[in-house]
Amino acid sequence: MSQRRGLLIILSSPSGAGKSTLTRRLRDWDPTIRFSVSATTRAPRPGEVDGQDYHFLSEDQFKRDVTEGDMLEHAHVFGNFYGSPKGPVQAAIEDGQDVLFDIDWQGAEQIRNSSLAAHTLSIFILPPSIKELHRRLVSRGQDSDDVIARRMQKSWDEISHWGSYDFVLVNDNLDQTSEDLKTIVQATRLRRLQQPALVEHVRNLQTEFEEIS
Amino acid sequence: MSQRRGLLIILSSPSGAGKSTLTRRLRDWDPTIRFSVSATTRAPRPGEVDGQDYHFLSEDQFKRDVTEGDMLEHAHVFGNFYGSPKGPVQAAIEDGQDVLFDIDWQGAEQIRNSSLAAHTLSIFILPPSIKELHRRLVSRGQDSDDVIARRMQKSWDEISHWGSYDFVLVNDNLDQTSEDLKTIVQATRLRRLQQPALVEHVRNLQTEFEEIS
Repeated sequence: MSQRRGLLIILSSPSGAGKSTLTRRLRDWDPTIRFSVSATTRAPRPGEVDGQDYHFLSEDQFKRDVTEGDMLEHAHVFGNFYGSPKGPVQAAIEDGQDVLFDIDWQGAEQIRNSSLAAHTLSIFILPPSIKELHRRLVSRGQDSDDVIARRMQKSWDEISHWGSYDFVLVNDNLDQTSEDLKTIVQATRLRRLQQPALVEHVRNLQTEFEEIS
Repeated sequence: MSQRRGLLIILSSPSGAGKSTLTRRLRDWDPTIRFSVSATTRAPRPGEVDGQDYHFLSEDQFKRDVTEGDMLEHAHVFGNFYGSPKGPVQAAIEDGQDVLFDIDWQGAEQIRNSSLAAHTLSIFILPPSIKELHRRLVSRGQDSDDVIARRMQKSWDEISHWGSYDFVLVNDNLDQTSEDLKTIVQATRLRRLQQPALVEHVRNLQTEFEEIS
């Protein structure tokens, strides 16, 4: 029973709800959990490494990949395409490795409708309060009221899709939320569909049964 | 976030796979997990207490309950009816208590198709080997070859439905299986659908958002 099938762990939340800290803790707990490396048509920035920070693709290549079903999800943002290539994810989960997706609700929805749907685990992180998110943005003193208002609207748009996720955690206590997240991942790894070795095991039981009968 | 909705924990397995020990350990871990008390039309045996060992019903009453949708599952066995009354289960899960069902695949299937389907968690326990089950039955020396053959056939019938369960655990190490079972229950309690307080929380976030905007 050693061989398992990996999970597509989808984590969404409005910014400021603690998702990066939770993600870091999850990977500290189990460093074999990979990040999905996005593909993009935007130009690499200084220091960015192809295949590590992003898979840098031409627009033609990107569109071809989308047409051929090689993108689990994709979006067009400020004139550039971004997406999650399917190949590396499929290889990873067949190899028993979980892949973490830090994406918004639209990406999550596309992955839930992809051919790897059966292997997803989607978790939404809610903040304990909106006022706190707002206070943090204001206190940074970096952004105009307009920018802050737009960010808050975006946060609310994201939150309004909480109802499509398997699990929804209110991050009012980072330690507790982090523990809950681990428990959820641990348990979901035991899901029948993540355990391809079961098929073999039942086949062996059947052989034994036939020998006895 | 204290108020949660309880689970219908369905445990199935062929006899001899260790289900009773696992059930006992689960309830030692959390004594608030209740057993579902079955209803039956058979006569009470000496010492059996109505409402505790079984709900003893007349055949008329039982059939009326089935017709009115008050049985989550039921079966006719050796001339008597057996079933799981819905009322007490519904009350328990609304009160945040989990209810454990020790039933076979046919009962499990009916509960999965009941109005409480969304709150089920179904787990199948597989034995590491069939020969071991067989050896135990034979070594008890209580049963004729015929009875043993029938029991083995029944075990195999049960096993052949493993593919309909959310989780399937091979009980090759009781301590490990017991831990896995706890982790699964713990995580599933966090499922969005088990957390009715989330609706209220999101409503509060929305109010805050509207006050800021």
